[in-house]
Amino acid sequence: MEKDVFCKIIDGEIPAHVVYEDNDVIAILDISQVTKGHTLVISKKHYDTFLAVPNDVMHKVMDVAQKIGQTMIAGLHAKGVNILTNCYEAAGQTVPHFHVHVIPRYENGDGFILEMKNNADGINLPALCNSIKTNL
Amino acid sequence: MEKDVFCKIIDGEIPAHVVYEDNDVIAILDISQVTKGHTLVISKKHYDTFLAVPNDVMHKVMDVAQKIGQTMIAGLHAKGVNILTNCYEAAGQTVPHFHVHVIPRYENGDGFILEMKNNADGINLPALCNSIKTNL
Repeated sequence: MEKDVFCKIIDGEIPAHVVYEDNDVIAILDISQVTKGHTLVISKKHYDTFLAVPNDVMHKVMDVAQKIGQTMIAGLHAKGVNILTNCYEAAGQTVPHFHVHVIPRYENGDGFILEMKNNADGINLPALCNSIKTNL
Repeated sequence: MEKDVFCKIIDGEIPAHVVYEDNDVIAILDISQVTKGHTLVISKKHYDTFLAVPNDVMHKVMDVAQKIGQTMIAGLHAKGVNILTNCYEAAGQTVPHFHVHVIPRYENGDGFILEMKNNADGINLPALCNSIKTNL
């Protein structure tokens, strides 16, 4: 299987703007910068998605995401931060290697557009709740 | 200070569709169901945002989010999942109590609209990288 772009960055085969690095985690500027400071926090070991990553590795990645988010407020003077991980193409994942987006927000009209519309019409909430609960 | 809606749910003052609950974490169906199964994973103790929550609590919340996301693929037959937490109003946070959205995705055209547009023009990446790194 061909290496994904993050594996290549981790192995030093492609350059990146590295914000943070330790044995398990690397954080780089997203080349698309949907907002100024947009950073990706990535597990060095390859896992396809957030859903597949072992808990201890996931915790390390999320700790770095939190620290970077705090820095965006304190250091970059962002007014808010979105923390996002997309699992699988149907959810907008473009690189199949677990990564967390840390997206500072400054004002409306940046490159990050998020709308969450009420879509509850016709959903039987008690039945749905039960279906999730029994599958957990 | 008036209790937020999640504190009221946790204290049993408002009903909710509870998917999961333990001593530290509660997960409920989002009443707006931007997609079918849209769930909120919430720390029982009040923290304003993901950026303010202690790591051990955050890990517990993320572990539940992961498990629910896995269940959405396996049990609800979702094709993808978005895991999202918005920090502060500027990032779209509507309830000022740390919560993680777990949003199953089935096909295009649901109530969850996410666009991440390239906005890198004019950004000095090496300088920006350095500015984040030195503030971490």
